[in-house]
Amino acid sequence: MQNFSFYSPTYFSFGKDAENNAGTLVKRFGGTKVLIHYGGGSVVCSGLLDRVKQSLEKENIPYAELGGVKPNPRSGLVYEGIELCRKEHINFVLAVGGGSTIDSSKAIAAGAVYDGDFWDFYCGKPIEKSLGVGTVLTIAAAGSEGSSGSVITKEEGMLKRGAGGDAMLPKFGILNPALTQTLPAYQTACGIADIIAHLYERYLTNTPEVEVTDRLIEALMLTMIHEGPRVIADPDNYDARANIMWAGMMAHNNSCGVGRSQDWNSHQIEHELSALYDCAHGAGLAVTMPAVFRYVMKHDVMRFAQVAVRVWGCQMDFTHPEVTAKEGIERLRSFLISIGMPKNFAELGAKEEDIPKLADMACNVNGEDGKLYGFVTLNEEDCIKIYQAMV
Amino acid sequence: MQNFSFYSPTYFSFGKDAENNAGTLVKRFGGTKVLIHYGGGSVVCSGLLDRVKQSLEKENIPYAELGGVKPNPRSGLVYEGIELCRKEHINFVLAVGGGSTIDSSKAIAAGAVYDGDFWDFYCGKPIEKSLGVGTVLTIAAAGSEGSSGSVITKEEGMLKRGAGGDAMLPKFGILNPALTQTLPAYQTACGIADIIAHLYERYLTNTPEVEVTDRLIEALMLTMIHEGPRVIADPDNYDARANIMWAGMMAHNNSCGVGRSQDWNSHQIEHELSALYDCAHGAGLAVTMPAVFRYVMKHDVMRFAQVAVRVWGCQMDFTHPEVTAKEGIERLRSFLISIGMPKNFAELGAKEEDIPKLADMACNVNGEDGKLYGFVTLNEEDCIKIYQAMV
Repeated sequence: MQNFSFYSPTYFSFGKDAENNAGTLVKRFGGTKVLIHYGGGSVVCSGLLDRVKQSLEKENIPYAELGGVKPNPRSGLVYEGIELCRKEHINFVLAVGGGSTIDSSKAIAAGAVYDGDFWDFYCGKPIEKSLGVGTVLTIAAAGSEGSSGSVITKEEGMLKRGAGGDAMLPKFGILNPALTQTLPAYQTACGIADIIAHLYERYLTNTPEVEVTDRLIEALMLTMIHEGPRVIADPDNYDARANIMWAGMMAHNNSCGVGRSQDWNSHQIEHELSALYDCAHGAGLAVTMPAVFRYVMKHDVMRFAQVAVRVWGCQMDFTHPEVTAKEGIERLRSFLISIGMPKNFAELGAKEEDIPKLADMACNVNGEDGKLYGFVTLNEEDCIKIYQAMV
Repeated sequence: MQNFSFYSPTYFSFGKDAENNAGTLVKRFGGTKVLIHYGGGSVVCSGLLDRVKQSLEKENIPYAELGGVKPNPRSGLVYEGIELCRKEHINFVLAVGGGSTIDSSKAIAAGAVYDGDFWDFYCGKPIEKSLGVGTVLTIAAAGSEGSSGSVITKEEGMLKRGAGGDAMLPKFGILNPALTQTLPAYQTACGIADIIAHLYERYLTNTPEVEVTDRLIEALMLTMIHEGPRVIADPDNYDARANIMWAGMMAHNNSCGVGRSQDWNSHQIEHELSALYDCAHGAGLAVTMPAVFRYVMKHDVMRFAQVAVRVWGCQMDFTHPEVTAKEGIERLRSFLISIGMPKNFAELGAKEEDIPKLADMACNVNGEDGKLYGFVTLNEEDCIKIYQAMV
């Protein structure tokens, strides 16, 4: 096992009506003037935004508002939020929404106290301080509620990049599974795909002897396989929603990813798809993962066989482990299709003729030295082959 | 799933030589004058205490020292520590040792800023504030490095009681698996038994539909079953030590116990054994658990069958699930014996004639209304039968 540090100081309030604790929690974590940041639509229509406001008002905490966050959140709105925070002397950002809203809130909170362009953080500058961030989560997916990371897309060139650091860890997370019951099935499924991807990206390691984290990742995968179809079949199943919501947080606060090298090449390859076609990140991952895994499988057949047996219930073929390994990947693919995820470029809205451009962006714009470093090091040619396998 | 809150803000520095970060971490978490609290013997002889001191000196942090913590830590030393902290204007307690040292440190840190008898906290008074506590862990067992709890024994009457609350959560934990390599095999095995008990106490729930936490607990149990025998056979196996150490923390920071009723009756019943005979807590649990589980098994046969199949590798007997359930308990018992744990009263140093006294203490002194509330509610008569089954 590698040396590591682990820090997950976020306070979680989980369960029915938990959003009514927003005011108390903002107060507990030092917020005295709040920016409520959200997307729009459902958060407003469902009355959630009003309940959050009432909770703040009950604690006499003044607030400003900024809606309009879109999936694959943009830098333009972040700049707007930063200016608003400065103008209104805001010291706490409350995200009401999903991963995009939380990521946008983290960017605003870090940018508001930085004497420069917030985009610097997304080009590698360490984040030293930030306003406090709290979240009221409306979809189990990105895990941003418990992570130190944020992904923002810059409009010029549609560059999708990540930033992170302890200063970005949310102070609290309000997780009410009932809030996710009104999600369209497709979005629920995208969330499931995203959570499963966070688990695979950690599972694909080159570090030997990491049984504890292997087992924890497998536990969360098994949970998703059990609960995913239940929630798709019965969107009002609170318990299934609750299990998925906690799994989604645990999948990405890194408690099950410590002490081991991780992959993240599926994310790198997918990022170009959602940046270019504005498709849902989870849907992109559902198409990307099987293609990447088939391509890199030979690098460590026994690792893929292990997940096939322990998670996907395959019988081990001791004479031909590669058969078992491959079967596990096919079961993952079938599972993702069964919950309504796209299976290829066409269903995703991606175009074959863009493949050279996608591979170029993945390797030469977002990669390092023209390469993607992960479980297996991939170059532009590798990426072209992987994208082609998705067609 | 039940509503819950979860808070685990402890910063973990994990790996080889991590103890050299003690000074930096004390500084990061606001310590300016430190009490180093420890047991004795190995911490001193191994040079660990010196390395910790050097790390503090490097950051120019002055310190006082208080050694002498014993297993099942006593209130007498806590009073001494509190007085020392007040006299020396100490604002941070650094525990160098195992669960006993950490629990004693937590008691001192809370007591030092409380205008009254610290024992009040162990009689149910909420803990509102505390000095900061950091830990340098030397045995994977109690999980106190990531928990909000502390157990102290009061000399008068040998009362063993617990206290807890967010204020008791350690600021940081230094976990270097190499520090546990010099432990005698018996102590290592006691730690393994303790960790497994923390998992079973959470597994035995009456809350339905908690798949995610079931799976996470099973993951940690599987890790212990895999790594336990490896570390007993080869004490210098760093990776096996590392997997156990992280599992021990995760088993008790409650990330896998949220949203569900828990048991803790094995702990209640064991506490009287270690209080009366001063035996190792883990050894007491190894004898107690199988006896308790056999006694309560009929309350939820399918839960015991589930752990038997998923964790202990039993084949499910679909016609007679109770056969599978019982087989799982027997496999647990065999496992504990195989790593060197005692199997009965005699090996533990406990006496059959004390059973009425043990049951009386468990139910009427430490229980509520003469009962132990957990997975199954147990009265004095139940406890007598359980203790008798351990003979």
